[in-house]
Amino acid sequence: MTDSTSHKLPAGFQTAGITCGIKESGKPDLSIFVSDQPAVSVGVFTQNLVCGAPVTVSKERVGRASSRAVVINSGNANACTGERGIKDAKAMTAKLADGLNCDAEDVLVCSTGIIGHLLPMEKILSGVESIVPHQGGESSHLQAAAEAIMTTDTFAKISSREVTVNGKLIRITGVCKGAAMIAPNMATMLSVIMTDAELSIEQADRLLRHAVNRSFNCVSVEGHTSTSDTVLLLANGAAKMGPVDDTVLGEFGAALDQVSEELSQMIIRDAEGADHFVTIDVTGLDSYEDAYKIAKAVAEGPLVKTAITGNDPNWGRIVSAAGYAGVPFDPLAVTLHLNQTLLYEQGQPVNYEEEAVSKSMQSGEVHIELKCGDGPENVRFWTCDLTQEYVRLNSEYTT
Amino acid sequence: MTDSTSHKLPAGFQTAGITCGIKESGKPDLSIFVSDQPAVSVGVFTQNLVCGAPVTVSKERVGRASSRAVVINSGNANACTGERGIKDAKAMTAKLADGLNCDAEDVLVCSTGIIGHLLPMEKILSGVESIVPHQGGESSHLQAAAEAIMTTDTFAKISSREVTVNGKLIRITGVCKGAAMIAPNMATMLSVIMTDAELSIEQADRLLRHAVNRSFNCVSVEGHTSTSDTVLLLANGAAKMGPVDDTVLGEFGAALDQVSEELSQMIIRDAEGADHFVTIDVTGLDSYEDAYKIAKAVAEGPLVKTAITGNDPNWGRIVSAAGYAGVPFDPLAVTLHLNQTLLYEQGQPVNYEEEAVSKSMQSGEVHIELKCGDGPENVRFWTCDLTQEYVRLNSEYTT
Repeated sequence: MTDSTSHKLPAGFQTAGITCGIKESGKPDLSIFVSDQPAVSVGVFTQNLVCGAPVTVSKERVGRASSRAVVINSGNANACTGERGIKDAKAMTAKLADGLNCDAEDVLVCSTGIIGHLLPMEKILSGVESIVPHQGGESSHLQAAAEAIMTTDTFAKISSREVTVNGKLIRITGVCKGAAMIAPNMATMLSVIMTDAELSIEQADRLLRHAVNRSFNCVSVEGHTSTSDTVLLLANGAAKMGPVDDTVLGEFGAALDQVSEELSQMIIRDAEGADHFVTIDVTGLDSYEDAYKIAKAVAEGPLVKTAITGNDPNWGRIVSAAGYAGVPFDPLAVTLHLNQTLLYEQGQPVNYEEEAVSKSMQSGEVHIELKCGDGPENVRFWTCDLTQEYVRLNSEYTT
Repeated sequence: MTDSTSHKLPAGFQTAGITCGIKESGKPDLSIFVSDQPAVSVGVFTQNLVCGAPVTVSKERVGRASSRAVVINSGNANACTGERGIKDAKAMTAKLADGLNCDAEDVLVCSTGIIGHLLPMEKILSGVESIVPHQGGESSHLQAAAEAIMTTDTFAKISSREVTVNGKLIRITGVCKGAAMIAPNMATMLSVIMTDAELSIEQADRLLRHAVNRSFNCVSVEGHTSTSDTVLLLANGAAKMGPVDDTVLGEFGAALDQVSEELSQMIIRDAEGADHFVTIDVTGLDSYEDAYKIAKAVAEGPLVKTAITGNDPNWGRIVSAAGYAGVPFDPLAVTLHLNQTLLYEQGQPVNYEEEAVSKSMQSGEVHIELKCGDGPENVRFWTCDLTQEYVRLNSEYTT
């Protein structure tokens, strides 16, 4: 899915990934993402009330121009761990700050993995100490960092783009992890996006929110918003493009949107036990919120998902899911295409080649186009099917 | 589950159930519920925008004191069938009205089964004609009517209570069907409740809404609100208790609540592919709506359901589902019991006998008690687990 040699780090960034011993498997479980110079940091976090300690700590530390690094461990989410969890998360950042000779407040932190267990701090602190010399700016360092944030992921997720702003080459490079408990508002999903662009805090924040709203917040595996989700953007200005006003940031913003979209789609492609990748276009609503609600209801409907599992072009379950989304629309204005075939028009099913549509679904790619009226607002949403393998994976005794 | 001989019809009601030929299996597929004298009728209907034709017709005909009957067919939902569907639903009622010598407007209609197909009207109209002589007031007639509304149900669902009002014996007898696409707001679920009490339209409506809100709207298999759901209450006054004011209706209301609760629980016990019956008590909220939202999020969380499938007392998935319900509460005030064992207190897991709790879940009965604060409002909700069998059943090619 990702060719590690094709992704370069932006200027002035180094990363590393190592094994510090949290995972019993011995797989990599500790990463750092470091800017050589102070960077603007912004973040978008889980909206789950029950959030992990690192979310609480990092939330307080984004939105500044002096950030230097992100430290991430996998294997343990440091969530539901009370005051001790907060202390541990801060200790991780203080340890890395020592190694980088910066302030602990300028280090961000994320954790992902099992919840309700205290972090093995001895392993983590000695890991953070030993990871610093491993950092570097090569593709191999990026690959190592992307691998060490994985939990049930089956491949490392990296995306990058290059654009020119003010005559300077700007790079945007992001990594993410996530393969289950994925829902809008970012369930067990972590992403770090780095750029050497020079951005104000306000610009970075606005561009990240725009990108996340149309990418990470538009993917859902099963609708479970986890306790730890975080997307961070670090912009260090190392490309020396100088400060710019918004008028020249259009191409940069589009590239950031693409990196976010590519990363979030990789999560769906890697969804636990999934056989189908589903793109849902909902069009013709009066508001974006309404279109989003309908897309989410269709994406998360177990009866829609299981129909897709069975390569069944079941228009009834799709139209009915739209109907219970809690959004007003005229049922007689609904038109539905599935893999480019018209199934439903003006409130009624039409005749179509059922077998041909079912066969097209066997490719594993499903495109649902649901037109609910003539309004100007649309949304694109991604999800996967619901398989017996998903149930098997998630019903095995895990506590 | 139900002993047909133990349920009597209220005075002045007759029912029947026959095979008219809609189902290829040859199983019963046509029922009538008839009051010998004009009855008060009230109803609660699906909130899905895409609703079946019978819902549209019956909605216009409840809330009157002259209702005489309900006709129900299974095997075809008459939904997504346009203007023709409305015409067909009305023709069903007109045919029964002929047989009963009443006005078509005084006959209500429901249909359940596949959607998007026109009703086989020839079979249905000849069935309606021939069913009339089959009606009777015996338990066997009730059983036949309850069986003929079944779709994927594995048993007929009947509940009854007797109470005394104004010195008269009053009977409440209800039937329902539903085993999939069950969600709050009544997904593919039909119920007819008959009573010989004398009620005003306003009293009947208020009592039915109270009962439905705490029963049928508190069960969820997978969160899919279908196009056809309907609960109807017919009150014909045949017990001759005379009109009463609300002060003497407390016991009657409680009995109606019990009938509704018992019927709705039967749906969960008969849920497609389910191995566990789950009762969720959410307590300590400031409003009923907040408690309801949390209970629904927990009940419909696929990760909660699959944990229960695996007999896994996974407190993390339960607490986390509460956290994303969109309701404000203090995570540090959360206490969770599962099958009477304390798992989680003040924002953190506690030590408990994991194996003993898991073993208790193997009984198939799971009781989740989630206390979210010290507020006065509580809700009780019922659901089932999510099994590989559920996925298999719902992913088989059905279009």
